[in-house]
Amino acid sequence: MLTAKAYVATSSTEPLTPTTIERREAGPRDVLIDIQYCGICHSDIHHARDDWGGQTYPVVPGHEIAGVVAQVGSEVDKFTVGDRVGVGCLVDSCRECAYCKAGREQYCVQGGGTLTFGDTDKYGQVTQGGYSTHITVDEDFVLKLPDTIDLANAAPLLCAGITTYSPLKRFGAGPGKKVAVIGFGGLGHVAVKFAHALGAEVTVLSQSLGKQDDGLRLGADQYHATSDPQTFEKLAGTFDLVINTVSAKLDLDAYLGLLAVDGALVNVGAPAEPLAVNVFSLLTKGRTFAGSLIGGLPETQEMLDFAGTHGIGAEVEIIDAGKINEAYDRVLASDVRYRFVIDTSTLPGTDEA
Amino acid sequence: MLTAKAYVATSSTEPLTPTTIERREAGPRDVLIDIQYCGICHSDIHHARDDWGGQTYPVVPGHEIAGVVAQVGSEVDKFTVGDRVGVGCLVDSCRECAYCKAGREQYCVQGGGTLTFGDTDKYGQVTQGGYSTHITVDEDFVLKLPDTIDLANAAPLLCAGITTYSPLKRFGAGPGKKVAVIGFGGLGHVAVKFAHALGAEVTVLSQSLGKQDDGLRLGADQYHATSDPQTFEKLAGTFDLVINTVSAKLDLDAYLGLLAVDGALVNVGAPAEPLAVNVFSLLTKGRTFAGSLIGGLPETQEMLDFAGTHGIGAEVEIIDAGKINEAYDRVLASDVRYRFVIDTSTLPGTDEA
Repeated sequence: MLTAKAYVATSSTEPLTPTTIERREAGPRDVLIDIQYCGICHSDIHHARDDWGGQTYPVVPGHEIAGVVAQVGSEVDKFTVGDRVGVGCLVDSCRECAYCKAGREQYCVQGGGTLTFGDTDKYGQVTQGGYSTHITVDEDFVLKLPDTIDLANAAPLLCAGITTYSPLKRFGAGPGKKVAVIGFGGLGHVAVKFAHALGAEVTVLSQSLGKQDDGLRLGADQYHATSDPQTFEKLAGTFDLVINTVSAKLDLDAYLGLLAVDGALVNVGAPAEPLAVNVFSLLTKGRTFAGSLIGGLPETQEMLDFAGTHGIGAEVEIIDAGKINEAYDRVLASDVRYRFVIDTSTLPGTDEA
Repeated sequence: MLTAKAYVATSSTEPLTPTTIERREAGPRDVLIDIQYCGICHSDIHHARDDWGGQTYPVVPGHEIAGVVAQVGSEVDKFTVGDRVGVGCLVDSCRECAYCKAGREQYCVQGGGTLTFGDTDKYGQVTQGGYSTHITVDEDFVLKLPDTIDLANAAPLLCAGITTYSPLKRFGAGPGKKVAVIGFGGLGHVAVKFAHALGAEVTVLSQSLGKQDDGLRLGADQYHATSDPQTFEKLAGTFDLVINTVSAKLDLDAYLGLLAVDGALVNVGAPAEPLAVNVFSLLTKGRTFAGSLIGGLPETQEMLDFAGTHGIGAEVEIIDAGKINEAYDRVLASDVRYRFVIDTSTLPGTDEA
């Protein structure tokens, strides 16, 4: 075992605190990663605070991991020491089911694969995430990061990137298509960059015009405030695809009304309460309301390669580990432009990895 | 003008009564049709009783029209006297917009085309539907009926047929696909026939097993009662496509749970009240909830040709015109196997067409 420095949640109500955790020695097919940056995803907060129920503690959050390979097992053939690598939401899956074989590990019949933190792995250990100096991961769940993107900017792509890239691709964002993105935060700003790079005409639908300059700079063609009722009149029937990155409850029928014939509204976040849908909103233009959940390993690598080609990384605020709790509060207040990334070199204490 | 016998709703609360209506003489591009049968669609009742609001009266319902060409205009080139023809939900559209040009007239930017009854046509006349002995329709909105299907069985294809065929095709029903149909009534039984003929494995999800024998005879591979909670456990994650033909409010999340990864639940009916959706039901398997509204003229002809090739017609109870009001009550009580079709030769009175 190796000892790694980390930041841990010990209950749903206490602030996260520094700790050390054990990582397994790299087995024959494992890669030991020297983590350099880890993004703070909104879902880290849901887990740390047990918003979805059933959380086990202690838990080290973090599934937007970017670092450098420190050691490889004897059978590892895809990575060598010094490679720039990432780890996302999954660190393993059954490898046997039809979905795993199709590279869609997020739908693994064994519960959707092994989550990077707070899940139980095949060794019977509770997984611990990326708010840490090191992690040991089977090479099949390690991604190559493009040389053209700084590690800090690449880290959020491992969750925010694939979460938005996957539905954009699946629902045909590209030249001649009008795509709207609801919410301009950690997910939304990455969605705008990808949709723009894919060749679509991109509109941001944000509560206010407060971030309009950033939106237009990062790839949006238009930026509208959803607090203005005229937005919904002006844009009725406009979009081929709307990606909803907002987890709060919203007036679904109003947003469905923005879709053109055959258009799709895709939720990548999940509000805790059910949403109401007037089926006429769907019928009258053959519209679709869909959900999308991260992506499999091959698609995640495709997304990273695409990001490398187009120079797409997240806009980040790099923070010291001591600021994690403050960052959580700021994420909940939508006060971040646009993703917090922890510099893991600032984790206090000593490790022995 | 020609005088045609008809059955008319004069208010939302009175029974339908016999009347005569005027039909225009066939213009250069018109076809005068001698209507022989007209199906009773559930939406006829919604219109007659003003369930959706804004209905004008008097209104002759009926958009499942089958008959024979009695007369053609001088420029008509697709039909000759004696041809077996049908008319569905639309009798005109703008012809200019992108949707009309693409043969998707149901999405015409001019309000989705001119409805067969209760709409206003380009002559400024309120359209009157198929509970009548004759109708005059532009040839572009007249469909050829296959020789292999009796006119009475063909009539319901003009609405129930295209309403179910279109989403089956769009969402890929075919060999290797598992399709479920919610509700085994006028729409549902036609959906089962089409899904079976398209090569899919077909399951009926009906409130009870009362119509199971019919379901299996008409093409279903399995038949399950939704009143049995075990149905939802046994079939969880099973279907690639679920077509919901039921307009009543239902537990959408329970039905979404029946979908496999990437699966779609498509509503072809619209409950008056909004439905609640737990977005997690969509996210976890990348599922889709969609609506579908009839089909354009080319797809309707494709459906009729497919029906002809596969010998698919609706199962009907042929009724005399005097039984229309009783039939309405029986439709509302789900007491019909499986579509009422009016024999228009029984319309009382005289006409001069």
